[in-house]
Amino acid sequence: MSEITTPPLPSSEGQGSEAPDTETLAAAPERRKRAGGRGAERHRSGTETSRYRKLVNTIARTEMLSAEALEDIHEASLTVLEEIGMDIILPEARDRMRAAGAEVRPGSERVRFDRGLILEMIASAPSAFTMHARNPARNVDIGGSNLVFAQVASAPFVADREGGRRAGNQADFRKLIKLAQHYEIIHTTGGYPVEPIDIHPSVRHLDCLSDLVTLTDKVFHCYSLGKQRNLDALEIARIGRGVSMEQMESEPSLFTVINSSSPLRLDGPMLQGIIEMSSRGQVVIMTPFTLAGAMAPVTIAGALVQQNAEALAGIAFTQMVRKGAPVMYGGFTSNVDMKTGAPAFGTPEYMKAVIAGGQLARRYRIPYRTSNTNAANTLDAQAAYESAMSLWALTQGGGNFVLHSAGWTEGGLTASFEKFILDVDMLQMVAEFLTPLDVSPDALALDAVRDVGPGGHYFGTAHTLARYETAFYSPILSDWRNFETWTDAGRPTTYDHANRIFKEALAAYQQPALDPAIEEELKEFVTRRKSEGGVATDF
Amino acid sequence: MSEITTPPLPSSEGQGSEAPDTETLAAAPERRKRAGGRGAERHRSGTETSRYRKLVNTIARTEMLSAEALEDIHEASLTVLEEIGMDIILPEARDRMRAAGAEVRPGSERVRFDRGLILEMIASAPSAFTMHARNPARNVDIGGSNLVFAQVASAPFVADREGGRRAGNQADFRKLIKLAQHYEIIHTTGGYPVEPIDIHPSVRHLDCLSDLVTLTDKVFHCYSLGKQRNLDALEIARIGRGVSMEQMESEPSLFTVINSSSPLRLDGPMLQGIIEMSSRGQVVIMTPFTLAGAMAPVTIAGALVQQNAEALAGIAFTQMVRKGAPVMYGGFTSNVDMKTGAPAFGTPEYMKAVIAGGQLARRYRIPYRTSNTNAANTLDAQAAYESAMSLWALTQGGGNFVLHSAGWTEGGLTASFEKFILDVDMLQMVAEFLTPLDVSPDALALDAVRDVGPGGHYFGTAHTLARYETAFYSPILSDWRNFETWTDAGRPTTYDHANRIFKEALAAYQQPALDPAIEEELKEFVTRRKSEGGVATDF
Repeated sequence: MSEITTPPLPSSEGQGSEAPDTETLAAAPERRKRAGGRGAERHRSGTETSRYRKLVNTIARTEMLSAEALEDIHEASLTVLEEIGMDIILPEARDRMRAAGAEVRPGSERVRFDRGLILEMIASAPSAFTMHARNPARNVDIGGSNLVFAQVASAPFVADREGGRRAGNQADFRKLIKLAQHYEIIHTTGGYPVEPIDIHPSVRHLDCLSDLVTLTDKVFHCYSLGKQRNLDALEIARIGRGVSMEQMESEPSLFTVINSSSPLRLDGPMLQGIIEMSSRGQVVIMTPFTLAGAMAPVTIAGALVQQNAEALAGIAFTQMVRKGAPVMYGGFTSNVDMKTGAPAFGTPEYMKAVIAGGQLARRYRIPYRTSNTNAANTLDAQAAYESAMSLWALTQGGGNFVLHSAGWTEGGLTASFEKFILDVDMLQMVAEFLTPLDVSPDALALDAVRDVGPGGHYFGTAHTLARYETAFYSPILSDWRNFETWTDAGRPTTYDHANRIFKEALAAYQQPALDPAIEEELKEFVTRRKSEGGVATDF
Repeated sequence: MSEITTPPLPSSEGQGSEAPDTETLAAAPERRKRAGGRGAERHRSGTETSRYRKLVNTIARTEMLSAEALEDIHEASLTVLEEIGMDIILPEARDRMRAAGAEVRPGSERVRFDRGLILEMIASAPSAFTMHARNPARNVDIGGSNLVFAQVASAPFVADREGGRRAGNQADFRKLIKLAQHYEIIHTTGGYPVEPIDIHPSVRHLDCLSDLVTLTDKVFHCYSLGKQRNLDALEIARIGRGVSMEQMESEPSLFTVINSSSPLRLDGPMLQGIIEMSSRGQVVIMTPFTLAGAMAPVTIAGALVQQNAEALAGIAFTQMVRKGAPVMYGGFTSNVDMKTGAPAFGTPEYMKAVIAGGQLARRYRIPYRTSNTNAANTLDAQAAYESAMSLWALTQGGGNFVLHSAGWTEGGLTASFEKFILDVDMLQMVAEFLTPLDVSPDALALDAVRDVGPGGHYFGTAHTLARYETAFYSPILSDWRNFETWTDAGRPTTYDHANRIFKEALAAYQQPALDPAIEEELKEFVTRRKSEGGVATDF
C-alpha cells in the first residue's frame, strides 16, 4: 500500500538559476518541451519523486468574477484606502509612508492612501522571482504558472495518534521539518510547523532557524517579531547559503508572512518585518486575515474588498521601503460558522474567495499565496474533503505559493503528523493531475487496440507490459484491496495508514549534506547570540 | 451540527417545461438574471433546499486536451470503428446497422462503421432534452450547462455501521430510495441503489419500479435486461405520469444505462435495450466501461480512444433506431492498480479522463454523463478525497448527469448509507460553489467597512445581523466545534455524524402524494404482471 521513497542526495552542481523575469516565464512551455515533450514526465519511475520539484500549473484559471466585478472590487478597496485608510502602528512606517506621499496626520495612527499612490507603488513589485535555498536544486520559482507547496506553519499544538494532541515542543518541531525535507512535493518549510514552547522565546528563533538550515536544505521562513529576530534570521540564512549579504540581497533566500490585524490595521512588528525584509530584498507574503462575518464583512465580496485593501497597502509599503522588493499577494479569506463564530475552512465560500483572490493577484501581476485548509479535529472524512476542496480552489484559481500545504488541521491550531501524510498524498495527486496528458501516437495505442480486438483484455499485452510499472500514480494511502482482504488485514482506515507511514518516513529521513565550515560558522553564530541572551523578553 | 430539512410537498402547478432546444439553452444566463439577478440565490434561507433543484454550472470548462489532441483522439476512435469494428451480439441490431450502411459480413458478429456513417448518425442526437418526472417540479434538464445528480446504482452490497456490509435486500433498497427522495440535491434515482436479492429476479423489476413510482416522485432508470423488462418499465413510468404512451414518446421519462462489454463489444440485452428505449424516445446513457490497463489500453489517451469508439458506436445505433432519440455520452474511464488489477477511482488519471471525456462529448454536442467515484472500504479520509477529486473533475469538466452521485463506495460494490450523507453534503458544497458570487454594491459592503473602521469587528453590525442566518452554507457533517467541546462530545468523526443523520433523514422522510387512481392502476398492473409470472428466468 505504502511507498516510501528516499530523496536523492542534494546536488552541488550549478549555482541556481537567476530569478526569472517576465520574458523567461513566457517561454516556460518551450522549456518544458525541451525537457522531454508532452507527457514525458509520465514515464519516469514511480519511486523517483524529483519530478515533483518544479510544478507548473498548465490548466486555464477558473474565474468567479466578471471583468466588471473584478474592477468593482478593485475600485472599492482603493476607496477604502483613500477614504478610511489603515491604522499603522509604527512611527517609522508612518514616516516612510508620508515621505512616499500618503496622508498622515500628526497625533494619529491613521494613514490614508491616494489610489494613484497605491497603483504607482505596487507597479514596481516583481511578477516573478526565485527563492534561493542553500541547495540550489531546491530553489523555488515564484509567480507565473509555478506552483510551490510549503509545509504547515505556526500551529501551537501538535498531534499524532499515540501521543494525542499536545503543546508543541522541539522534538516534534524537528520531526516535522524532517518530514518536510523527506518529501519532494514539499518545496519549502513554512515557518515553525509547530511552536516549540520548551525553548525559551529569547533564543527559540536561534535554535529553530539553525535546525532549518541543518535538518533541511530547502528555503525557509522567518517570523517578523521584532527587528533583531529578522536580523538573526537573515544572518543564519546567509551563513547557510555561504554567500555574502550583498549576494543575498539580489537572491531572496528568506520569506516572512505579514498578517494585517484585520480590519485595516498593521501592527508594529509586522511593519518592522516589512522594513527589515524588503529593505534587504527578502520576500514578504502580505496576508490579511479576513474572516467574513468576524474581522471582515459577512459577504464574501465585502471580505474580498477588505482583503484587497489591506493586501495592497502592505504591498505598496514593501515598495516604499525598496522598489522591486519581492512580495506575494496573500489570500486567506474564509467564513465563520455564524452559529458559534468558529472559523470555517475549505467551505464553498472559501473556494470562491480563493479563486476571486487569484483574479485580483493576477490583475496586479503579483504572485499569489494561498493555503490548504480545514477545520477538522481528527483525520476523518471532513479533514479530507475540506482540504480537497481547498486544493481544488487554489489549483483552479492559480495559487503560486501554498502555505500550510501539509499537516495543517483544526483551523491551524494543530500540526498533525497523520494529516501531513494525507496532504502529501493529495498534493502528489494534484501534481499528477497537472502533468499533461500524453497523446503521442504511441499513447493513443491504436496498435494495442488492434492486437487485443473485441472481447479481449489488456493485462498481458506488450503495450501494457512496457508501461505498467509507471503508468499510474501509486498513492501513499489509498487502500484498494478488496473488502475481504482489507477485513483480514484488520480494516485499517486512512488514519491507520498515515500513522504507520509518517513513522516509516521519519526512519527513512536522511540529513542533507552541509559543508563543515558552514556548520561551524552557524554553530558559532548561534552560540554567540545565545551568550548575548538572544532577544530580550519580559518573561 | 446537523440540519435535516423537509422537502416542500410536490407541486401540482404547471405541466413541466418543454425540452429546451439550443436556443433556450443559450438564453440561460438571461433567465437566471430574471430570476433574481446575480447572487440572488445566496440570500435564500439555508433550510430551503429547493434552490438545489436546478443547478447550472456557470464556470468555464477546464480542458486537458489541445484542439489538436482532441482531433487525434476523435480520428483514432473513428479508425478503430472503421478498421477493427465492434462485435455486435444481436442479429436484429446487426440487421439494423447493415440497413443503415455499416459493413456486416454474413456469419460474423463483427460490424465495421465507416467514419462518415458514424458522424452522420450522431449528428441527429439532441444536444439537450428534458427528462420528465411524475412530479413536473422534479423534471430535469439534460445538456448545456445543466448539472443533474443521480443516486448510487447497482451495488450488490449495502452497508451501514450497525448492520455492516451485507447483500442487498428490499428493506435497504426502500430506505435508500427514500433518502434520494428526501434530499433535493439528489435530482433522480439511478437504478436500484442496491440489488434486492430477496425479491425473485422474475418479478424484482416490478416491485422495484413500483417502489420508485410510489416512494419517490423523481425520474428513474430501468435496466436493460431483455425486452420484456424494458416494456414493463415503460408501462410503469407511463402509469406513474398519468399520460399516454404517445405523450411519453415525446417526453422522455425513463433512462437506461447501456454499458459496452469493453473492449469493443455490445451484448444482446444492451442492444435490445437501445432498440426498446430509443424507438420510444426514452433516454439511453451509452457508457463504455474502459478501465485503462484491463479492458482498455494502459495509457489514458488509449483508453479514451477506445471509450470514444464504443460510445460513438452506441450513440450512432440509437440514431439508427430513431433519429433524434435522446442519448448521453457516458465517460467511465479510470485506471486499475497495476500491482493487483483492482479498479481505482478518483485518481489523477480518472480526473484527466473525466475532463478529456467532457471535451469529447462537447465536440459532439451530446450531454455528458460522469460519476462520483471512490474505492474506499469504509467512510474514512480516502472515501472523501477520492470522491472530492471526482467531483472536482466532473464539475470543471462539465458533466451534465452524474450517476452514482451519492452512496457509491468500494468501487461500486457497496451502497453505503453513511457515504450517501457524506456525498449529499459534498454535492451541496459543489452547488454552493457554483452559485455566482454576489457583487452588488450592498455585498461590496463599503458602508459596513466605514462603520466598523480599523481595529473593530463585524459580529454585531447591522450588515452582519441582516445576513448572518443565510450568509454561508451550513454543512450537514462538518464538525467545527473547538477541540475541547468536541472532546467532551466523545470525539465524533464524520462517520459518526453521517450514521446519525441518515437515520434522522429516514425518520423525516415524507412519501410524496400520488393520485389514488394512478396508485390503483399501478397496483393492478404489477399484480397482473406478477400473476403472469413476471419475466421467465431459468432459476
